[in-house]
Amino acid sequence: MIDPWSSKILEYNEIMENFGIKPFKEILDKIEDPHWLMRRGIIFGHRDYERILTAINEGKDFAIVTGMMPSGRMHIGHKMIVDQLVWYDEHGAEIYIPIADMESYSARDIDFEESRELAIKEYISSYIALGLDLTQDNIHVYLQSENLLVEDLAYIFAKKVNFNELRAIYGFTGSTNMAHVYVPLIQAADILHPQLEEYGGPRPTLVPVGPDQDPHIRLTRDIASRLQKRYGFILPSSTYHRFMRGLTGGKMSSSKPATAIFLTDTPDEIEWKVKNAKTGGRETLEEQKRLGGVPEDCIVYEILLYHMIGSDKELERVYRDCRNGTLMCGECKNNVADYMRRFFEKFSKKRKRAEKIAESILDRVHP
Amino acid sequence: MIDPWSSKILEYNEIMENFGIKPFKEILDKIEDPHWLMRRGIIFGHRDYERILTAINEGKDFAIVTGMMPSGRMHIGHKMIVDQLVWYDEHGAEIYIPIADMESYSARDIDFEESRELAIKEYISSYIALGLDLTQDNIHVYLQSENLLVEDLAYIFAKKVNFNELRAIYGFTGSTNMAHVYVPLIQAADILHPQLEEYGGPRPTLVPVGPDQDPHIRLTRDIASRLQKRYGFILPSSTYHRFMRGLTGGKMSSSKPATAIFLTDTPDEIEWKVKNAKTGGRETLEEQKRLGGVPEDCIVYEILLYHMIGSDKELERVYRDCRNGTLMCGECKNNVADYMRRFFEKFSKKRKRAEKIAESILDRVHP
Repeated sequence: MIDPWSSKILEYNEIMENFGIKPFKEILDKIEDPHWLMRRGIIFGHRDYERILTAINEGKDFAIVTGMMPSGRMHIGHKMIVDQLVWYDEHGAEIYIPIADMESYSARDIDFEESRELAIKEYISSYIALGLDLTQDNIHVYLQSENLLVEDLAYIFAKKVNFNELRAIYGFTGSTNMAHVYVPLIQAADILHPQLEEYGGPRPTLVPVGPDQDPHIRLTRDIASRLQKRYGFILPSSTYHRFMRGLTGGKMSSSKPATAIFLTDTPDEIEWKVKNAKTGGRETLEEQKRLGGVPEDCIVYEILLYHMIGSDKELERVYRDCRNGTLMCGECKNNVADYMRRFFEKFSKKRKRAEKIAESILDRVHP
Repeated sequence: MIDPWSSKILEYNEIMENFGIKPFKEILDKIEDPHWLMRRGIIFGHRDYERILTAINEGKDFAIVTGMMPSGRMHIGHKMIVDQLVWYDEHGAEIYIPIADMESYSARDIDFEESRELAIKEYISSYIALGLDLTQDNIHVYLQSENLLVEDLAYIFAKKVNFNELRAIYGFTGSTNMAHVYVPLIQAADILHPQLEEYGGPRPTLVPVGPDQDPHIRLTRDIASRLQKRYGFILPSSTYHRFMRGLTGGKMSSSKPATAIFLTDTPDEIEWKVKNAKTGGRETLEEQKRLGGVPEDCIVYEILLYHMIGSDKELERVYRDCRNGTLMCGECKNNVADYMRRFFEKFSKKRKRAEKIAESILDRVHP
């Protein structure tokens, strides 16, 4: 297997087969200038992406919806969503970014005021600094708890769903709190509200998610079809991306600082984290020179794959040099740490400038 | 039993004992000028009314909350609530009138737009014509679906409640739709939101209900105590009123026109309904002259008791004349039909004048 983008993709094939998600690579060549996350198979699956493709290729109206969950700090894994949004913005999307403060309250006990603060300071500033101009008219950022229309729509959907169904999908029990039980309905409203007439809908809508979020997509599509007659909903499309692993090899998690590079880490912290990350190196230098490294097992390589190198050619060179034993982990880490330091120095300046704008984003009035 | 206000009160005693509702008559003499519905035992029970009494007697801030459910037509049974509101308005209450359009949607499949129309045309106009000036600053009429703060509060409450609890209280099953399951939380928010700081709370709050609504009161009080620390809620007080029976002797219901006098019936229809109502008359004229009538069994008498005669003295006279066989049903019905005709002729004119004001009530902005 000499595929520079192949790391750990196998487990996802099973997910796709079980739930009717189609491989993204089958439609890849119909996209004129695919995003690197598409080209590298990080976006590995989809449902009904054809509708989005048609809209892009024919310059027609479409929406993309992707929420931010204001809990803890934004890490480099979250950057992937913003990178996609920048691409879709360039391709004509109407962009909706719900801030899941209602979910944050029910799941993490963070109240609405705290969520608002956190969203502005931690997420909105970073989104802007990552290149998404949230002041544009086609971009709609809102707090769930401040969006009456979304809350009303969630309630309208609630009539079409019962507890048995939610229990079967999410494993809720009789002692799950009702706010938690209600979350999927709010998410369905987040996803479908851009299709309401007052928002210029119905129209194709895309939701980029991790495979763990697919139950939400399936439920939302079911709700959309149950109310299709009344609202003319087009079943939402979705893409599925795999997740960058944590620096220590397990899951990247905001609640475990050692596993993640946070967007607000200092350059020194970032350098330290890169240099201590799990690699695909061998037991001894001699062995590595003889056998080459294993980029598929290397988190440092994943940083490049997901985030730091836009050019496939350049990335392939790193991959090859690692595999054939010319590029050792020490040198590679130095290079990546350098990349990262430069990136984050620039980013941190942009973030500083974005802070003022960030504060006004949630006060904008949307249709 | 020679009590002119005694009809069918016994069944309610059991309700009181089972659920810890206290008899209203025990505090009656502490009210300076009790409403006729209080004096006549139609308001028969309460929880924590002492708090409201203190507020009234000391001229302190308190709130009253009572919803209207926009489904079908407003009938004379609903008038009782407005009569109470007029009295509480005169006694310094801040008045909140939620229009239960979310409940109407989940229970009757009436959508929000239709509810709004219905509320304005059928209820708000009548409330005004019955003497409650909804344009006053201390009166807050709103649609649940348009009140973001109430919806958010319902969600905050939802975290403190689970499905098992709602099932135990309301008999919901796994196939009850989730909008229906969620209604009690919205109602709790209707009741408790006047106690939020932004509304000038916490403060004593009264909810006048029929005994069938007591589960809502108990749940709301439970929620209030679970969140007391955060919001400083004072457990809401409640009063319980019995219901006027339907004209045919059973339950008065909007969906059975023969059982109810609607506020928009024509004077001729009303006269006809009064004259055909079930009375407490005997089998024969001779028997009735000898034994007297039974006002306790008479719907025509209930009309007077609940609605048409404010003076206890005058009502007592009717009661006595019926019991001792001097007042026959025919004559009595003629009198009541006359009362009613005069009342509804005036009411209908007021209602006409109120229609224009009614349209603007829901557009008012509240704090």
